[in-house]
Order: sequence, then C-alpha cells, then structure tokens
Amino acid sequence: MSALSLFPLLDILGTLAFGLSGAMVAIRRELDLFGILVLAAATGTAGGITRDLMLGRTPPEALTDLAPLALSAAAGLVAFAAAPTIERFPRPVMLLDAMGLGLFAVAGCQKALAAGLAPPGAVLLGVITAIGGGILRDIMAAEIPRVLREEVYALAALAGAAAYAAAHHLAWPETASAAGAALLAVAIRLASVRLGWRLPRARRR
Amino acid sequence: MSALSLFPLLDILGTLAFGLSGAMVAIRRELDLFGILVLAAATGTAGGITRDLMLGRTPPEALTDLAPLALSAAAGLVAFAAAPTIERFPRPVMLLDAMGLGLFAVAGCQKALAAGLAPPGAVLLGVITAIGGGILRDIMAAEIPRVLREEVYALAALAGAAAYAAAHHLAWPETASAAGAALLAVAIRLASVRLGWRLPRARRR
Amino acid sequence: MSALSLFPLLDILGTLAFGLSGAMVAIRRELDLFGILVLAAATGTAGGITRDLMLGRTPPEALTDLAPLALSAAAGLVAFAAAPTIERFPRPVMLLDAMGLGLFAVAGCQKALAAGLAPPGAVLLGVITAIGGGILRDIMAAEIPRVLREEVYALAALAGAAAYAAAHHLAWPETASAAGAALLAVAIRLASVRLGWRLPRARRR
Repeated sequence: MSALSLFPLLDILGTLAFGLSGAMVAIRRELDLFGILVLAAATGTAGGITRDLMLGRTPPEALTDLAPLALSAAAGLVAFAAAPTIERFPRPVMLLDAMGLGLFAVAGCQKALAAGLAPPGAVLLGVITAIGGGILRDIMAAEIPRVLREEVYALAALAGAAAYAAAHHLAWPETASAAGAALLAVAIRLASVRLGWRLPRARRR
Repeated sequence: MSALSLFPLLDILGTLAFGLSGAMVAIRRELDLFGILVLAAATGTAGGITRDLMLGRTPPEALTDLAPLALSAAAGLVAFAAAPTIERFPRPVMLLDAMGLGLFAVAGCQKALAAGLAPPGAVLLGVITAIGGGILRDIMAAEIPRVLREEVYALAALAGAAAYAAAHHLAWPETASAAGAALLAVAIRLASVRLGWRLPRARRR
Repeated sequence: MSALSLFPLLDILGTLAFGLSGAMVAIRRELDLFGILVLAAATGTAGGITRDLMLGRTPPEALTDLAPLALSAAAGLVAFAAAPTIERFPRPVMLLDAMGLGLFAVAGCQKALAAGLAPPGAVLLGVITAIGGGILRDIMAAEIPRVLREEVYALAALAGAAAYAAAHHLAWPETASAAGAALLAVAIRLASVRLGWRLPRARRR
C-alpha cells in the first residue's frame, strides 16, 4: 500500500496529535472506548475532510486512503491505554492540540497552493484545516471551541500558514520551510499559553 | 414526479425515522412547531447531504428532489400531532434513531459502492451517513452527541455497513442483503441498550 | 481588484450584518479580540461557504475572493470598537441577525437559480445559506441555535427566498425584486419578535 507516500509526514503527525487530543477530551469527559475512538477519529480527520471538500477533491482522502482513519484510531487506542501517563503532562490536550494546529496549518496551506489557490486563500484554507478538527472535537464535547476561548490560537495557525506561503513564494527549500513554519505556529501557541499573552476584551455599556 | 423511484426505500424509511427522532428531541426541549420542523428536516437530511458532498454529487439530492425534505417535514408534523402516543414507547428517540442509523448505514454504503468507492471507504461513508444526522440533531439541541455517549452506536452502523459491503462483494441478492444488513445494525444497537452492554472507560491518573 | 463587482451588494450587506451579529455574541460571551474576529468571520462566511459547496463551486468564493473574510473581520473590528453604542439598540444581535437572514436568503436563492437549480431547491438553498451562519455562530457559542428556539425564523427566510423566486419566475425587475424580497424577510422576522407571534408547542403525555 502506498498510503505512506500518498500521505505526507506533516499530515501523519498532525492526525496523530489531533487524534490524541480528541481521545484525551473524550477520556476527560469519561466517555467509553467507543466514544474515545469516535472522537479521536473525528478530530483527526475533520480538518482534512473539510480541506478536501473545499478544494473540490471528492471523495476526500479520508475515504480513499485508510491512513487518516487508522492513524487517528491508533491514537485513540494509545490514549486509552496510556491515559495516566499522558495526563502527567501539564495540560496534555493543549499540548497535543498545539502540535496538530501547527502541522495542519502548514499541510493545509501546502495542499491548497498545490491545488492552484492564490496565497491568501491558501493561507486561509490552512487555518481552516488547522482549526476544523478542534472545533468539531469541542462542539461534540459540548464545549465552546478553544479557537474562541483561548487568546492566541487561530493567530498561531495563521502565522504558520503565512510563513510557509512566504517561504514557498521565495522558493526556499520545501522540507525546511514546512518544518520551520509548523514549529513557528506551535511555538507561538505554546508561548502564548505559557506567558499568558492576553488580548483586550471589548468595552461594554 | 419520479421522486419515489429516484429515492430508494431505505432512504425513505431512514429519513422518516431520523425526522421523527429530530422532532421528538425538539418536543422534549419544548421547542415550538417551527423548531420541531427545522430539527426534523435537519436530522432527516443532514446524513444524505454529507454523503452527497463527500461523493462530489452536487447539488445534493436534498436540493434537487423534494422527497427528503418533504418526508422529514411530514415526520415532524406526525410527531407534533402524535407526541403523546409516540412517548408511550420507552425511549422513543433511541428507538427511532436506531432505525435511522441502520437504514442510513446500509443506504450510504450502497451509494458509495455505486459511486465506485472501494469497500473500506464505502463502509466508512455508510457510517458517516448514519451518524451525521444524529450528530447535527444533538449538537443543535446543545447535547453531547449520542455517538459519543452511548456504548454501541457507531459500531452498530459499522456492522451494518460492513455486512452489506460483504454481501455485495459476494454478489448476494441486493434487496435481501440490504434489508438483512440494516436489521443487523438495528438489532445490535437495540440489544446493546436492552442488555446494557458496557465498554471499558480509560483508567486515569 | 474586481471584488466588488464579483460580490454583489446583498452579499456584502449580509456578510456585514452576520459578521456584526457574530461579534456581538462573542462580546456578550466576554471573548477577547481574537475570539470576536473568529466568530465574526465564521458567522459572516459560513452561509456562503455552505452554499458554494452545495452548488459544487469549489474552492468556495470565501477562499478565492478576499471580500467576504475582509468584510466580516471589519465587522468584528467595528463591533469591538463600538460595542457600547451597538448595545444601546434593544436586542442588537437579533436585529443584525434578522438583516443577515433576509439578505442571505435572497442572495442564496439568486445564486442557486443562476446555477440552474429548480425553484424549490433554490428556495431551500436560500434558506440554508441564510440560517447556516447563525447556526454555526450559536453552536460555537454553545447555545441552542435561534433557528430552533425562536418562533418565526426559518419561515422568514423561506418567505424571502420564495418571494424572490416567484418574482424571478415572473421576470420582474431583478434589483427591485431582490430588495423587496429581502425586506419582506426582515420585516416578517422583526414583526414576529415585536408582536410576539407564538406558534403552538406539542401536547405531551
């Protein structure tokens, strides 16, 4: 099977990270094994399915290539087995979510550029790919999505996707650009949480 | 109008069952007649719209054939008029939802195979078709979707879709295969509720 | 840039109105500037993205034309800066939402007819375009969507879209028909709120 060649590394890592984050939310909500697997699969694949539908690539890759579903289900099983270990990290869902966010922002932007979208639209599709899985995860867990609640979230995805699009425009080396841009997004997200970056709220009547 | 020939029996029954389930959730939440009709229509048509979008069949059938909308709205009216009778059944939403789940799992898988998808992807699309309407219904009612909360739910849809795909592969008679596979899914779902099948939860720190 | 010619006036106004409504919901939930911008953008663009996906127009306009995103983000900034003034109106979210509802119902129906959909499907797509942004906004804010809670909501969108489709069928002047139909929808929605039109709830056991 050529799944691994079809499905680039960023996507694999992003799917695993989001799958784990979905599973950990399910575990925190005390859902059972199936709930964990379903939320892991939904979180790991929703961003990519949204991206493919918006690019008119039907059926989406998640239906023609078993890798995305298998990877996110595997992440669900790992989380099920290793929950106590994963929970030793401070804020494990936030950490995993930040990794998925950065990886999917760049992977989504990359595919959109490859599909011929202009850079602004490609950056936007990167952001949508990055935040889509987490939005579905949080909505299904009946929580306000963290893209709304947390300070620097969509902005981190935007920075990663824009950095990748700029490097691509300058014809910098593909692999280094993608890795650097993903790291940038993850770093911005983690720094904002660690340093408590705050954005203003609106003055009200 | 050739709606009935276009729109096979499984879809009709699944749309009615999901439409009724959406209406009963709306009634339980004390929504008014319009809320009931909207939630019946959304629950009855969302799975099919998702399926059509993923297969690249645009506009989706729900926009070109009046049957899905008319059927789910009719289900909403029936539920509105007959709520006290329907509520005499134990857990009416669960029952109707189980029927929709089994019917749509098989109908979704059937259409995906007809569209040329390989069996694993077709089974997956059957599951997505089956759970899509219920997820939208529960999210719109601000509840955690039962696909996450309840033990054997996505698994029942998976069993029905997989049984149909296997029978299709073996070239068994179409109608009997579809009916048998849908019944299997419904039976698994109802048995899991009746017998209280429990799946493990993750150990936590 | 030919964005303004591409993106007709109804869409511009509807995007602004929905963007403002999303921002005001975010402000009411005490989200910060980014949460406000994200919810403004999601509310302003979700209806149009759904419409484009259902018509098979990929990538959706929101990814190829910067206007929808820029307009809804601008609406978010205006709401952020002017929240105390906007909140002086009674029920500002309801008012803005009603305007977006009427404008998008007609704009969605217009594009669906232009894409060759038959009138019933075009009216339905107008309704979906009109209610899509508000549903996403309310779900992301963890509220039951007002299309379910409020009395005459989807019905107002339906009346506007149907009036436009009828006028189009009769070959009435385009601009006047669209403006009149949008006004009709807004008027029905506002009258239902002002006059407290009530619809029956289901009798229960």
